[in-house]
Amino acid sequence: MIPKKVVVAFGGNALQQSGDKGDIESQFRNAKETCKRLVDIIQGRYSILITHGNGPQIGEIMLKDEYSKDLFSPMPMDVCGAESRGMIGYMIQRYTVNYLKQQKRCYSMNFPVITILTQTLVDADDPAFSNPTKPIGPYYTRQQAEAMEKEKGWKMVEQKDGYRRLVPSPAPVDIIEGPAIRTLFAEGWIIIACGGGGIPVIQRKDGTLYGIEGVVDKDHTAAMLARIVNADILLILTAVEKVSLNFGKPDETVLDTITVEQAKQYQAEGHFPAGSMGPKIAAAIRFVEEGGEKAIITSFKCALKALQGKTGTTITAS
Amino acid sequence: MIPKKVVVAFGGNALQQSGDKGDIESQFRNAKETCKRLVDIIQGRYSILITHGNGPQIGEIMLKDEYSKDLFSPMPMDVCGAESRGMIGYMIQRYTVNYLKQQKRCYSMNFPVITILTQTLVDADDPAFSNPTKPIGPYYTRQQAEAMEKEKGWKMVEQKDGYRRLVPSPAPVDIIEGPAIRTLFAEGWIIIACGGGGIPVIQRKDGTLYGIEGVVDKDHTAAMLARIVNADILLILTAVEKVSLNFGKPDETVLDTITVEQAKQYQAEGHFPAGSMGPKIAAAIRFVEEGGEKAIITSFKCALKALQGKTGTTITAS
Repeated sequence: MIPKKVVVAFGGNALQQSGDKGDIESQFRNAKETCKRLVDIIQGRYSILITHGNGPQIGEIMLKDEYSKDLFSPMPMDVCGAESRGMIGYMIQRYTVNYLKQQKRCYSMNFPVITILTQTLVDADDPAFSNPTKPIGPYYTRQQAEAMEKEKGWKMVEQKDGYRRLVPSPAPVDIIEGPAIRTLFAEGWIIIACGGGGIPVIQRKDGTLYGIEGVVDKDHTAAMLARIVNADILLILTAVEKVSLNFGKPDETVLDTITVEQAKQYQAEGHFPAGSMGPKIAAAIRFVEEGGEKAIITSFKCALKALQGKTGTTITAS
Repeated sequence: MIPKKVVVAFGGNALQQSGDKGDIESQFRNAKETCKRLVDIIQGRYSILITHGNGPQIGEIMLKDEYSKDLFSPMPMDVCGAESRGMIGYMIQRYTVNYLKQQKRCYSMNFPVITILTQTLVDADDPAFSNPTKPIGPYYTRQQAEAMEKEKGWKMVEQKDGYRRLVPSPAPVDIIEGPAIRTLFAEGWIIIACGGGGIPVIQRKDGTLYGIEGVVDKDHTAAMLARIVNADILLILTAVEKVSLNFGKPDETVLDTITVEQAKQYQAEGHFPAGSMGPKIAAAIRFVEEGGEKAIITSFKCALKALQGKTGTTITAS
């Protein structure tokens, strides 16, 4: 039996959680836990392509840059993002290989996990550029925030711990390295790609690419990537085992299998908040509508069981 | 005619030079210049695999880490190295694609340049581990250096601007992602791999990999990589157009084409210093001895001319 092809997407907080100090020990510990679950999936005879968030990591790199600005001028966000993708890719690829080794389940290849640094093409005319919505990087005082708005034209937002910069979150249009990723994935490699939604780049009239400051939604990029590599299943891993209607309310109802049509209806009814479940449902809808077999939303712990149809929320065409 | 396969190796200072402030503007400027030369080579109908140093970049990341240690505990060197490889790979892949676009010479593929994050296997028993020789990271005062030696067991060395840590420079044993790199290179992709000699990892008895603090010599890794991908030519780019005997002396003699035997003799006579031309000559010898057609050492400016046999120092089997 040919293994099903699965794109597995999870957030950057799978590696660096909000309670952590951002130290490498906790990142390594979290990376180990994450990769153990990824190896569970591989052991279940699925062929996987891994894509991850990078919010906490890019935030930390930008914060270090800001803190060291007497030494070096801070790097632009696309460059910080490239750094974070190198760092996360390295951790995931090494620990995944290690668990495979320990399970003696490395199949024919000795070292089958590789990271491909990915750029995601976005549209320079995307309305997101005139309406930045994604908070990123260090916290500033009100005074600093006002200075940033004036000097750099940044849009700032007040949050619990201070002011942060808002950057645009444009939609993905294409994945620049898509063909290379597809080639290697078809040949059986376990690929890590499109970290943090991919480094956002725009294309000028002469065809050249330029990095921009922004964050492409990682779930949407995952859906696009899954279609590019002809994946059967898009598996989105998050904090909950199943998606709920009326989440956190007395009449909360968990969802097992729903159709795209139902998902759209619940989405329209406002069951899925913009900052959390909303983009995951939207990505699931997109993937299935564009021809994917099914999308599954579940927790890390339940990932394999959900692929086997035993839990999770599954979104199908009909 | 099938294009010759060339592994192009150059130092991290091609992107960040000693006079630069480490700001992104100068890195972008240098990256553009570098990539223009790389595109010259591609336009000359050579199939290239790019490998680069990362000394200045990893140094900057470690320095920022050290400077921000009140915020976050500094990352180990392998993780900083992964960050630097993400950053450099992104710059080279984007600018190379852009020059190809401008030259309308992108052949059949639209976006043919990709970065593969690479780990290099080293031997845990390499004698280099008991004799660290490679200065890396921030400069410290004498007092700080003594504290580091005591607390962390680091070996420190005094340099012009202060004390620096010495890390081991073990020999490369294998390139973990070699098979994936070979696959993509054979299919016509322009690959960036083994940056900074690759992230050094050791293998434990159960087969698992662990990152270590050290620097694998990038020229040696380039020679190994060139054999793994069956390259015809190893092209090492440096500051000089040709290698010299008695460099900088009144009887300085430039070398055009030499045999491996001659190269070994000159090496034994002490013509090539350990910190600069020595490892380049050693890598050239290794590549040709292991079956490569020829190795060439020249400057960026002369790269294409040297491949066409018009300049540079060429090392051949006989």
